[in-house]
Parts: sequence; structure tokens; C-alpha cells
Amino acid sequence: MNRPKRGFASDNNAGVHPRVLDAMRTANHGHAVAYGDDVYTEAAVRLFRERFGEGAEVFFVFGGTGANVAALSAVTRPFHAVVCAETAHVNVDECGAPERFSGCKLLALPTPDGKLRAEQVEPLLKRAGDQHHVQPRVISVSQATEVGTVYTPEELARLASFARERGMLLHVDGARLANAAAHLGASLRELTAEAGVDVLSFGGTKNGMMYGEAVVFFDPALAEGFRFVRKQCAQLPSKMRFLAAQFTALLSEDLWLETAAHANRMAQALADELRQVPQLHITRPVESNAVFATLPPEAVARVQERFFFYVWNEQTSEVRLMCSFDTTEEDVRELAEAVREALRV
Amino acid sequence: MNRPKRGFASDNNAGVHPRVLDAMRTANHGHAVAYGDDVYTEAAVRLFRERFGEGAEVFFVFGGTGANVAALSAVTRPFHAVVCAETAHVNVDECGAPERFSGCKLLALPTPDGKLRAEQVEPLLKRAGDQHHVQPRVISVSQATEVGTVYTPEELARLASFARERGMLLHVDGARLANAAAHLGASLRELTAEAGVDVLSFGGTKNGMMYGEAVVFFDPALAEGFRFVRKQCAQLPSKMRFLAAQFTALLSEDLWLETAAHANRMAQALADELRQVPQLHITRPVESNAVFATLPPEAVARVQERFFFYVWNEQTSEVRLMCSFDTTEEDVRELAEAVREALRV
Amino acid sequence: MNRPKRGFASDNNAGVHPRVLDAMRTANHGHAVAYGDDVYTEAAVRLFRERFGEGAEVFFVFGGTGANVAALSAVTRPFHAVVCAETAHVNVDECGAPERFSGCKLLALPTPDGKLRAEQVEPLLKRAGDQHHVQPRVISVSQATEVGTVYTPEELARLASFARERGMLLHVDGARLANAAAHLGASLRELTAEAGVDVLSFGGTKNGMMYGEAVVFFDPALAEGFRFVRKQCAQLPSKMRFLAAQFTALLSEDLWLETAAHANRMAQALADELRQVPQLHITRPVESNAVFATLPPEAVARVQERFFFYVWNEQTSEVRLMCSFDTTEEDVRELAEAVREALRV
Amino acid sequence: MNRPKRGFASDNNAGVHPRVLDAMRTANHGHAVAYGDDVYTEAAVRLFRERFGEGAEVFFVFGGTGANVAALSAVTRPFHAVVCAETAHVNVDECGAPERFSGCKLLALPTPDGKLRAEQVEPLLKRAGDQHHVQPRVISVSQATEVGTVYTPEELARLASFARERGMLLHVDGARLANAAAHLGASLRELTAEAGVDVLSFGGTKNGMMYGEAVVFFDPALAEGFRFVRKQCAQLPSKMRFLAAQFTALLSEDLWLETAAHANRMAQALADELRQVPQLHITRPVESNAVFATLPPEAVARVQERFFFYVWNEQTSEVRLMCSFDTTEEDVRELAEAVREALRV
Repeated sequence: MNRPKRGFASDNNAGVHPRVLDAMRTANHGHAVAYGDDVYTEAAVRLFRERFGEGAEVFFVFGGTGANVAALSAVTRPFHAVVCAETAHVNVDECGAPERFSGCKLLALPTPDGKLRAEQVEPLLKRAGDQHHVQPRVISVSQATEVGTVYTPEELARLASFARERGMLLHVDGARLANAAAHLGASLRELTAEAGVDVLSFGGTKNGMMYGEAVVFFDPALAEGFRFVRKQCAQLPSKMRFLAAQFTALLSEDLWLETAAHANRMAQALADELRQVPQLHITRPVESNAVFATLPPEAVARVQERFFFYVWNEQTSEVRLMCSFDTTEEDVRELAEAVREALRV
Repeated sequence: MNRPKRGFASDNNAGVHPRVLDAMRTANHGHAVAYGDDVYTEAAVRLFRERFGEGAEVFFVFGGTGANVAALSAVTRPFHAVVCAETAHVNVDECGAPERFSGCKLLALPTPDGKLRAEQVEPLLKRAGDQHHVQPRVISVSQATEVGTVYTPEELARLASFARERGMLLHVDGARLANAAAHLGASLRELTAEAGVDVLSFGGTKNGMMYGEAVVFFDPALAEGFRFVRKQCAQLPSKMRFLAAQFTALLSEDLWLETAAHANRMAQALADELRQVPQLHITRPVESNAVFATLPPEAVARVQERFFFYVWNEQTSEVRLMCSFDTTEEDVRELAEAVREALRV
Repeated sequence: MNRPKRGFASDNNAGVHPRVLDAMRTANHGHAVAYGDDVYTEAAVRLFRERFGEGAEVFFVFGGTGANVAALSAVTRPFHAVVCAETAHVNVDECGAPERFSGCKLLALPTPDGKLRAEQVEPLLKRAGDQHHVQPRVISVSQATEVGTVYTPEELARLASFARERGMLLHVDGARLANAAAHLGASLRELTAEAGVDVLSFGGTKNGMMYGEAVVFFDPALAEGFRFVRKQCAQLPSKMRFLAAQFTALLSEDLWLETAAHANRMAQALADELRQVPQLHITRPVESNAVFATLPPEAVARVQERFFFYVWNEQTSEVRLMCSFDTTEEDVRELAEAVREALRV
Repeated sequence: MNRPKRGFASDNNAGVHPRVLDAMRTANHGHAVAYGDDVYTEAAVRLFRERFGEGAEVFFVFGGTGANVAALSAVTRPFHAVVCAETAHVNVDECGAPERFSGCKLLALPTPDGKLRAEQVEPLLKRAGDQHHVQPRVISVSQATEVGTVYTPEELARLASFARERGMLLHVDGARLANAAAHLGASLRELTAEAGVDVLSFGGTKNGMMYGEAVVFFDPALAEGFRFVRKQCAQLPSKMRFLAAQFTALLSEDLWLETAAHANRMAQALADELRQVPQLHITRPVESNAVFATLPPEAVARVQERFFFYVWNEQTSEVRLMCSFDTTEEDVRELAEAVREALRV
């Protein structure tokens, strides 16, 4: 068999971690009640509570956009607004699903590094109470951000306490929360419950699962009615056991951390290699599993002949190179070599 | 290892067919472009076109409710109405998702057997053109129906031509289309494209897949913009190859038909057994993988101690017994025996 | 000038009561702050509280559909259901606006007389708590109903206490609440706050106003955020003073009662006349300003040449004859004469 | 009677023009079929077609937000995006109603003067066809803008042809179209149909009407189904004749132009007075009925004791002074005097 072909396009271009796949196969035994009333789901929820705190209310959903849409719909009314960074996945990459489903307006703020600050949100509250204007209700941050940066627990706590003081909530789009935790050496709980996060979309797919994300509420009152929201959002899997089994595999023996830490390490290794290439400029701090770099357009085209990845910004010829749980040191070296060759020509 | 425990609650309580699971494992090799631009998806779509006709536009989605919601939203405007049977899954079992997402009203009509007739739809068109009233645009039928009955190709063709004459469309919720085809000895194409169906939700999950359904448009013009509808409905899987691989397994070597025909046969066998029990009454024609029967409440409770299944109608003590691709003759005999015992007491 | 032409088609085919129009003209003096922060609105709200109770939260909106849509959206989440009679305006005559805006499903129940009973609602609660099903949250009744019947305070109180016990709310679509009050000799308060009604759409347009309805909450907690709901529903008039002035005129010196009682009296007079016509059958109790009667189709056509009115049911040739604040005894006599002539031919 | 009190807060703080009020009173004669099937509506539509072109499809609605919401919903699908200026009424002042109702995302662009340019829209089209992103479909401009500036017919034509080339549409929020026309000396047709505008919200309320706006489609195909959209948006007035009569008054003998030109003239007069005050800075070109100026905060407070108006930007202490059809030269002089006094202290 040929060596598997891998690229640097996205962590969701990777496949499924073998231990996750094994868990799915093991779950394929006999019948199980559909829609989550089964022992696999019970076990997965138990593990979530061990990691995130006993008070966590946990719900599994099909996908990342579904997690965000359902989470935001659950904690808002349609005249509310969700404050996020301009680069946020909810703002850019979900085809308007959050607005469509929640009815809410997204108030997107520019940031240099993909990270929101409370000071930016403050001015949006001037019109609080004025019936002509949407009412900011949720601050939504991506952890890690879409440009690979990471909020520290302190930064999250500051946003959370700002939110609480203004009657707002803090939502974390944690499609890559594992990578952030691995980078910070922080536990999942420190980055969520303990930082004051109210509701979390926790990603599995980008970290070695086949499909499936979780919505976690840290205040049970916010979870009220969420089962109906999930179903109405078409995010309730019938054969739930196979989704739950994946999460159980991921959260057991800290597989989630192992996979995320590996992807982060590969990103660091890649950045180290690329930093030695003088015609190339690393544009963002490498804090998770992404490396952003500017590369002349001709070189981009040549490297893309061998490795699939995306141009993030065509104006500046900035590319995004994502590492995954299955990226190898050899992949990294070969990509770096391909870059050097492309520039040498 | 113990014999796997199986019940008669629902075909989505069953697990995954081994050939489907194998295909998923085989697809777990290297990287593949996310969101459907991969060879697995291409192959699956090719098989769909072989089965449903070359003109079919095929889109894979996470789940059955998502398939219905996205399909109906794609072909309606919010002031339209969708006509369906009172028993329809879209009307009863989707927590209002079709209305919520499409904005449309569902006009649900009573039926003796879960099957809509054109004559019932006709009176709803009296108010066509009147700005105060929703405008019927889609007839949505379940094939097989929620009570296990099946539309013949002729019945579908009649509904389709009625719809066409009135400027309406015919949608088929085919969560169990395979079972209907197996019962009728008809091809998938005869039950859809050739009958004049406009848009189909084609189910995989209830027929041996882990997750995943397809939305199939038989008029490409209706599919315009559907990729955006799917994404906005949060129904676009990122690691699409694993969904596509399941459909490829299901449609290859007519596995879909083998599994569905088996489930149907088990239902017939179960009905045959139960017909010999005098205190029990089979209430509906057994045309797919469901058997409906009335059983005294005390007997229901006793049988449920050994086999999981649902009471369909508490007033009449009518139960629903669903067979699956993995139901065995032994399961059937044991259930029948349990029923007899429960009645004997 | 010719005698004004009047028909029996609808109370919203009538014009504006002279005292209402005078009040509008008087309000046309200088500037007033837009959107309700003006003395006219303050005065109208004060009158509402005198009539409906000091705890009433009152909001003015453009129209009747807008009032219902905003009221129902305010007190529901999208996975809730609204239980109503099949004949209800919200179910039949609002082009699906309630579903579209609230996201809720309407569960419409058949009634012989347009009036819901608690016993009918009870079976819908069987699926409370089941995530697959919409969750009944509001009972919405029309007072007077679309077929001219009226709920007594006792009937309302029974529905309200049923609702309260089940965690539901009672909404009254009071487009013709004034007519019901006039018929019953009950105060507005007795028919709402004192009966346990939670939220009311109070109609002005059908009772002599030009435009404008009110949404009244009897529990201030339910009104939370309603100003935003109203604006987002596009139901916030900018030059609010002219709407408020109409309500002030209507509620002053019991004009609302005078106009409604007059319309009711005309309906009784019409029914009395028609009861003497043997070929004609009064089909519904005449409890407000509507008379329903069956009349042979040929006669219908002949009478319609002189008076505009609607056929309610073509199958049974039942017509609806609505009286208004401006219907005269002469109009009634002439209509009766036209009917007799049409039948004589 | 005291002299009527007038301010400079908004043109919707003004009352109703006497000729408009007269027309309403005159329409109050006998019965008229509700919902627009009456001679008053017919006459008003005829006048619209004289002004805007025979191909115009005209629909009356309750209010300005309703006009925008219904117009945008009519010409979009929920995965579309509407491109507008950050300052646009649809973006800022409608409590998220456009997103809520259409499902569309608003893509709001910064502008120095409230006016969009095609060059700004171009980059948003990069992601056309990509299923992850909303698809720009409508360019929506305000005429006059919220900061009082005006698009020339050439500027509109450029936007319209840009839109057409990209498969997009041009929507004009013409709440103050009359003021723009008066400023430019252009006809309504030159600013709409002839410039290539596809759909228009035409305002009456800010130009001397009591309530009521119109949605005008210049391509009849776009108007398909709009009657249902309007009703479902709760924007269909029942006693339509009173709304139609207002428009008939406004469009007869060019009253619309007389009122708008007067308001513009008062704004110019006010600007002329204020330009002579050295401590005050006129911040925007005065092209319609608004004057924007910076005034020290203490002076603002003092002037507001005598005249009601809004601070537009608290950071810069910029105020907005709106003139109306009923603003008098005396009002202007008194305001200028109040400003001078406030600064003198």
C-alpha cells in the first residue's frame, strides 16, 4: 500500500484516529436505544463531567456549525446580538446559519490577532435598552482562533466577568479547544468552567473524530429546553452511540490531549523549518496547530502541486498551513523542502 | 461474548451493517478534501445516478430531519404550505423543524393508512392566490409511511401529475424508501424519477448506515442554491468521505435491497407468527418492516420486559414492532413466544 | 352627497368613527417625540390601565396580524406549539405569519362553534418533555370567535386555570373583544385580567379605528423585551401619537362599548329579520356582530348585487353577514328585503 | 391656542400635512373593500405609475422598517447577503428585523459619507459560489442617506449596472427619496426606474403622511408572490383606503416635492445661520433636510432645553438637526439664536 497522502489544508482533511475508529466498531454490537438514551452516551457524558466539571450539561450534535447555531439559539432571543471577531467562524464560514437560525445579528469587530477584548465590546452597549437596536447578549470567541492564536485563562476570565457585569454571556467556539489547552498546558476545565465560560461548542472532528461535536452548558439554567433546540436544529443523531463512543475514546487516557499536542508540535516544527527560509515570513504567533506565512504567489503554486493547503489572504499572499493529529515529521520536512525548492527556482 | 441484544423498537436502534463499517474503515486512509470535493463522494454520487437516473442532483446530509428540512426549504418560499399526512414524520416527529426552518405552514390531513390522496389536497387549493392564506406548494409523502404502508408507483405518479398540474411539487420522505422498493419489487428509479417525484430525502441510517441521508433533486433547476441551503441548515459534514463511503457500500451489489428485503421478510415472519395468536390483532397491512398489532396493556408490559418496542396508540393499546437489517428469525420466534407467554398468563 | 354605501362584508370595510377621526386631527398639533414617548401615548396607556387593571403592560402596534405575531413570539420559544381552533384567524387568515415569525407550530383543533375546550388540549400534552415533539405552550382563543360566538368569563377562567396548571399561557385574540364584552355585559377586565388571561391582542380597527391594535400583558414578566420584539416585527409606528389618540377616543366615555353594542344590536336585528324568512337558516348563535346563515346559491348571487358580503362555506352555501359600528337599521331592513326578494324570484 | 411646539429631532416628530389629513377625512365615507381592493388604492397606484413608470408594481405597507424587511425578503433567499453602508437604517435602526425576517446576513461597509461605492462591494464577491459563505445578492442604499447626503442619478446608475453585471439587485431605502429628488432637481423616475433601481422602499411618513410606505418593484418578475410576503410580514393594512388616500394627496399637485423642498430649504437656511457661528462646525454636506454640526457638549445641553434634537456622535459632540415639512423660518432663527446664546454664556 502506498504511503497515505496528507496535506496541510485543514485538520478536517485528516481521517479518524485509530482508537476512535476502534471505539466505533466496538459500539456496533446489538441494539441501543436511539437519540442518546443509551449506555454509550451515558459513559461519554460522565467523562465530559470529569473533564469539565460535575455541573456541566452536555449534549452531542452532528457538526461544528450545528453546535454553534444550537448553542447561540439556546441562549438568545432574536432581538439579541452576538458580538464576535470579524474573523470568527460563526461570522465568516457558516453561510449565515447563526443569523438564520437564531434570528440574531452578529456584531463583528476587527482584531489584529483574532482575539476580542472587552474594551471593544463596551461601546456596543451604548444602545442597550433602546428599542431600535439589537441588544448585545453574547460574546462569542473562538479558542483557538481562526488565525491560530489562543486566549489565556486570564483573558477568558476577563471577558467572562465583563460579560457577567453587563448581563451578557460568554460563548466559546471550541472547535480547536484541545489545541489551545495543549498549548497553554491548561486543563479543559480551567479554560471553560473555571474561567467563567457560560456555553461551549466543543469540537471533536478536527481532533481525530469522524463527526460530532458537543454543546456544554456550565449553568444548567441555560440548558433548559436545549434538547428541543437541538432537535429543531436537526442536530440530534439517531444512532447516538457511535458519536458518544468517539468522544469516550477521545476523552479516555487523554487521547484528546495527545492528538492536539502532536498537531501543535508539528506546527512548531514546521514554523521552525520555515523560519530558516529567508524569503518567507511567519505572520502570526504559532500557538496551536496552524502556521501562517507569506510566500510569493509563484512559490505557492509550485508547493501546492505537492501539498494541498489554502491561501488565506490573496492580497498579501499569506498561506495557512494546518497540522493534524496524523501529520508526521516527515510530512513537515517534505513540505519545508518543497517550499525551499519552490523558492530556489 | 453474549449474543447481541436486539429489540423491535426502531430500525435506528440497530447498529451498522458490517460492509458499511468496512467501507468507513477503508476510507480512513490519508487526507481527503473536506466538504465533499473528494473521490469517495464522487463515487457515491455516481452510484446514486446509476440508481436514480443521470439527471439526479445528489447531496449528502447528516440526518433525516436535516434532509427533510433542507429539501423543503430549498423548494419553497416561506408563504408556501407543505401538504402532508397527519402521521407524517415532518409533521409529528421533527419538533417543528420544517416550519422553523422553511417558514412554511404544514397542512396535515387525516388518512386511514398514512397515505395521501390527490382528492384530499384539492380542497386546500381553493384559496390559491388569496393573500391571506398560505399557498400550497409541496405535497410531501412518506415512503414507506409511518404506519408501514407503501405507495405504489401508480399512486405516486397520480400524486405527481396532480401536483404538476397545480404548480405544486412532490416530495418523498424516503427514510424507508428501500423497504418500499423491496416490498414492491420496484427499482429506486421507478419509485422516484419515473413516477414524477421532484425531490427525495433518501434514508441510509434506518437501513444499516451509521448516519447520513441524501437529498436528491430530479429537476436540476430545483437544486439551484442547494449547497448553500445545506450549509445554512448545518447539514454539511466536513469529513464527507465517511458518509459517502457508507452510501457507496449500501448501493454497491444492491446491499440496500438485501438489507431492506431482509427486514421486510422478518416483519412478514413476525406477522405470520402473531396472526396465529388469537388475542392479538394485526392492525395494518404489513408492507414494509413494521408490524402494528393490538395487544392487551398487561401483555405489552410483560413483553417489554424482554424486548424493547413502542406503544403506538395508548388508547387502543396498539404496538409498533420494527424489524431491521439485523433482525434474526430467532429474534422473531422469541418475540412471538414472549407474546404468547404474556397472553397465556 | 349620496347616502354612503355600506355592506356586510366585514367590520373592517367600515370607515372610522367620527370621534376617532376628530381625536386624530386634534393630535395633529406641533411636534411629538416619535415611537411612543409622547403625551398622547401616555394618556392612552393610562386609559388602558383603568380598563384592564393597573398591572397591565400596554403596547400599540400597527395591525391585528402584527399584534398576534408579536404577542405569540414574545411568550414562546420556537420549539413551542400554540394550540388554537381550526377556524382561528392565526391559523387560517394570517398567511402563516405566526409560524414564520415565532417559529412555533400551530396545533389546530376542530370545534363545532369556534371555541376551544380544555379537554381538547389535554391529549396534546401527552408528549410533553419528548424532544421529538413541539411543546404546547400557549392556548390561543379568539374572542369573539371567527364564527361570532363568545367565551363567557367562566369558560375563559377554566381555560386559564387549565393552562396555568400545565405551565401554559392563555392568549386572547381580541380583535372583537369589544363585541364579546358588549354581548356579555362584562367589563374588559372581567374578560381578561380577572379571567386569568396572560396576553391579549386588543383590536381597534374593527371597532371604528383607522388602524392600530394593542398588545396587553397581564403579567409584566411576560412583557420583558417586548419593545424589541415589536420593533423587530416591524410593528412600531413612528408617529405613535395618532394611533394612541384613536385608542384614547375609543376608550373615553365608553365609545368602544357604544360602537360594539351597536354593531351587535344590528346583528340581532338582522337575525330577527332573517329568522322570518323560511327558506333561510341561521346557522350559529348570534352573540356578537356576525350573522351566519345558509341561503341558496342563486339567492346569494342576487343579494350580492346590492350588498357586498362573503360566502363562508361554499359547500353549504353559508354566508357571513357582519355588522359594524356604522350599520344602520335601514341597512338591515334593506338587506333583509333584498334577501326576501332574491328568494321570492 | 399656543404656537405649536416644534423641534429638530426628526422629520417623524412632525405631524401630518393638512392636505394629507383632509384626504383621509374625505376617504371616510361609507364602506370600502378592505386590504386594497378599493378605488382609493387603485387611484394611488395609478399616481405611482405616473411618477415611477407604467411598469412599476406598487404595494402599500404600514411602515418603513416593514417596507425594507418585506422588500428585501421578497428578492432574496436566506443564504443571500445584503450589502449596505454601516450607517444604513436597515443595519442600525431596525432592531435586526431585516436579518430576522429575510434570514440574510447584512454585510455593512464603512463609508465616509453614508454612500456605498461599487468598488467597495467588489471584494465581497470573491467568495461567490463557495458554499461556506453567504452570497451577496442585494446592494441596499439609503436615499437620502442617514447623514443627509444624496446619490446622484449617475451614482445610482453605476451601482445598478455593477449589480446587474454580478447578478445582484439594487434596493433603495427611499424613506427620504423625496428630499433627495428635491435637492437634485430630479424626478422620482430618474432616481429609480431610469437609474436601474430594482426595488424601492418609498417613504411617506417622514414627508407629511401619518403612516404608510410603499414598496415599488421596477421588474414585475421580482414582485411575484409579494402580496403573500407583505401579509406574512404583517404589513397589510386592512383599511387600506386611508393609507392610499394619503399617498394620493402626497403625489397630487406635487405636494411630495413641495414638502420635501421646503424641508430642504429650511435645512439650508439653518446651515447658513450656523455657519456664521465660529465655535460650531458643519460636518457634512447639507443635501437634504438634515444639518450635522459639532457643538460643545455644554452648549448642546443648553439648546436642548428649548429644542428637542439628537446627539449623533457623543465622542465628537456632533448633533443632527432635522427639518420637516412644517419647520418655519422662525423656528430656524430661534434655534440659531438659542445656539448663539448657549455659546455666548
